[in-house]
Amino acid sequence: MSDEAEFEESLGHVTIENVVLDSGKILPLVEQRYATYGHLAADGSNAVLICHALTGSHHLAGPDVPGLPGGWLGPLIGPGRAFDTNRFCIICFNNMCSPYGSTSPMSINPETGRPWGMSFPVITPRDIARVQRLALGSMGIERLALVLGGSLGGMISLEHALSFPELVGCCCVIAAPARLYPQAIAYNEVQRQAILSDPDWKGGDYYPGPGPSKGLATARMLAMITYRSEQSFAGRWMRGMTDSGQSSHEWGAKFKVETYLEHHGNELVSRFDANCYLYTTRAMDLHDVTVGRGSLEDVFSRLKGKGILAVGISSDILFPSWQVMETARYAGKAGARALYEEIESDNGHDSFLIDFDQMDEILRFFIKEESI
Amino acid sequence: MSDEAEFEESLGHVTIENVVLDSGKILPLVEQRYATYGHLAADGSNAVLICHALTGSHHLAGPDVPGLPGGWLGPLIGPGRAFDTNRFCIICFNNMCSPYGSTSPMSINPETGRPWGMSFPVITPRDIARVQRLALGSMGIERLALVLGGSLGGMISLEHALSFPELVGCCCVIAAPARLYPQAIAYNEVQRQAILSDPDWKGGDYYPGPGPSKGLATARMLAMITYRSEQSFAGRWMRGMTDSGQSSHEWGAKFKVETYLEHHGNELVSRFDANCYLYTTRAMDLHDVTVGRGSLEDVFSRLKGKGILAVGISSDILFPSWQVMETARYAGKAGARALYEEIESDNGHDSFLIDFDQMDEILRFFIKEESI
Repeated sequence: MSDEAEFEESLGHVTIENVVLDSGKILPLVEQRYATYGHLAADGSNAVLICHALTGSHHLAGPDVPGLPGGWLGPLIGPGRAFDTNRFCIICFNNMCSPYGSTSPMSINPETGRPWGMSFPVITPRDIARVQRLALGSMGIERLALVLGGSLGGMISLEHALSFPELVGCCCVIAAPARLYPQAIAYNEVQRQAILSDPDWKGGDYYPGPGPSKGLATARMLAMITYRSEQSFAGRWMRGMTDSGQSSHEWGAKFKVETYLEHHGNELVSRFDANCYLYTTRAMDLHDVTVGRGSLEDVFSRLKGKGILAVGISSDILFPSWQVMETARYAGKAGARALYEEIESDNGHDSFLIDFDQMDEILRFFIKEESI
Repeated sequence: MSDEAEFEESLGHVTIENVVLDSGKILPLVEQRYATYGHLAADGSNAVLICHALTGSHHLAGPDVPGLPGGWLGPLIGPGRAFDTNRFCIICFNNMCSPYGSTSPMSINPETGRPWGMSFPVITPRDIARVQRLALGSMGIERLALVLGGSLGGMISLEHALSFPELVGCCCVIAAPARLYPQAIAYNEVQRQAILSDPDWKGGDYYPGPGPSKGLATARMLAMITYRSEQSFAGRWMRGMTDSGQSSHEWGAKFKVETYLEHHGNELVSRFDANCYLYTTRAMDLHDVTVGRGSLEDVFSRLKGKGILAVGISSDILFPSWQVMETARYAGKAGARALYEEIESDNGHDSFLIDFDQMDEILRFFIKEESI
């Protein structure tokens, strides 16, 4: 699918004061950057909120925006596409604790005049959703016809639906569980340890930088393994080595998979912040829809009568499809119109950023079924 | 099974000169530490070689030996056990590049009088097997009735059988592939990067220590994830937190899975060497039975008429059972008496060090079938 569709992207921000977090702490000032595509209908019935993942941004599609990574949902946005910009008003917020402009540990703490660093409060996906809801209010958007996201974006989407069910029409959760299982917490913790062990981290007090580049690169290398799959690696390179002119028995010789990880490690260092990485992975760890809400059965009863689509990925080793299925199962039992679909792909967890043909088919079907 | 069986353990070492490695380099002097259990029959027909894994040692069973980790095969060794010390002469060598006494990067390079460090040549599992074969010769042992090992030990065992088929009766490869797949190389590389990024590594020139403790701990934390499984973590702790007196929204609060990883990271730092870790993981990466031998079909034709048992583990995410099965399939096609068995366990890759009841049953069956 081409990315040449014509549509306008509007970038903006709103500021919210005194946000109460799950921890009980209060953030005096939270800025929320966003992008919108399409126009809100007079009756406000066509708002679609899309939530981004760990290292993504609010820039979903269209020409590159300086300082932001390339759009991650390009093929699905535009006139006639699954997210039809002639029909929907599509909104994406930059998540709190992301380095792409919303309030984060990089921001200035108004009480000290210095970057928050590690004095920023620990947040949760529920906090991220709560702030986005407040921002939507400031923007004059109340009802969301659909809220959707993948990975961390899926967790935030689910929290939107569960925290504000009366304001959410339906919800699509892609490659995300209803609560983080311990293996994913373990992978996150090793990534954080790589950062915390880097002497350039300096307790998080490294601004203006460059900060713990090696630690962040190592963290990203591990993350990349969990975003792909053995099938993907074996299919691309198997045991192929990068041409280095060295014998495979020299330390300078590298397998292609090693060079690939190194590339992705360095790429993230060039565009992301280590403290933001710490906070955002910790937010994922704390994702658990049951906290303060009773059992999974109790929680999902909030979605009774609503459409909820859970999309798993056949080769996902980070959030295996059985974890994603759990959401559809509990939602279904609780009386939601629950669907489970699976992307069949060797691309692993990142399939939702790669296999747009299947994403397109699944999402068009859901949008039609739910008459959005 | 109790570990109280009565038998004697003999510890010793032999020294081999001018060992030619796969790289073409020559090691002037290689010491091989070993442990034996039981006595060699007059006709030399009862020798069983057991090969240890990445961080194990030659000490298989019996009372603790100062400076060595606890025996890792205790329940299977002793009178009347699967490896019956009244019937077999069981030998285990400390692998080259392990820190438990055999020659490694910690050893003194006789040409410089200083520790080898990173000037030690890169080795392969085939090199480890070759040196062990030379050591067996020095010890007056030629024929091996059985060679067996798990994980890296399985790779070394397979190399014994393929490099010296005329001297090996049968072979058992547990939780190891015939060649490392790229995902395992990727996990190893991230672990190495954690060590190489630690400023205390100092290019490997950190002796007498303490060396890159943080990097080695982080490496081990990641390794532990790959040695266990989601089922194992979820079954033990799910999202339980360690009692710290802190709210889960404080950075000091830890999930039990995080505390578990931290414990294992520190435990390895207390008993292992970082350069040895680098060399041994690289040896694993270079494991590929086809190198210099033609296709997998060609390679396994060397085992024609021999018994070969491949044992996979149902929940292994490091060397998934389909990779282990490959060895049985190719060996069977080539005319070996190939068997595949699977340990059904949630304990992941480490099941071969935990699920001794299943190991016992599988190994007794193979020993009987092969009339060892």
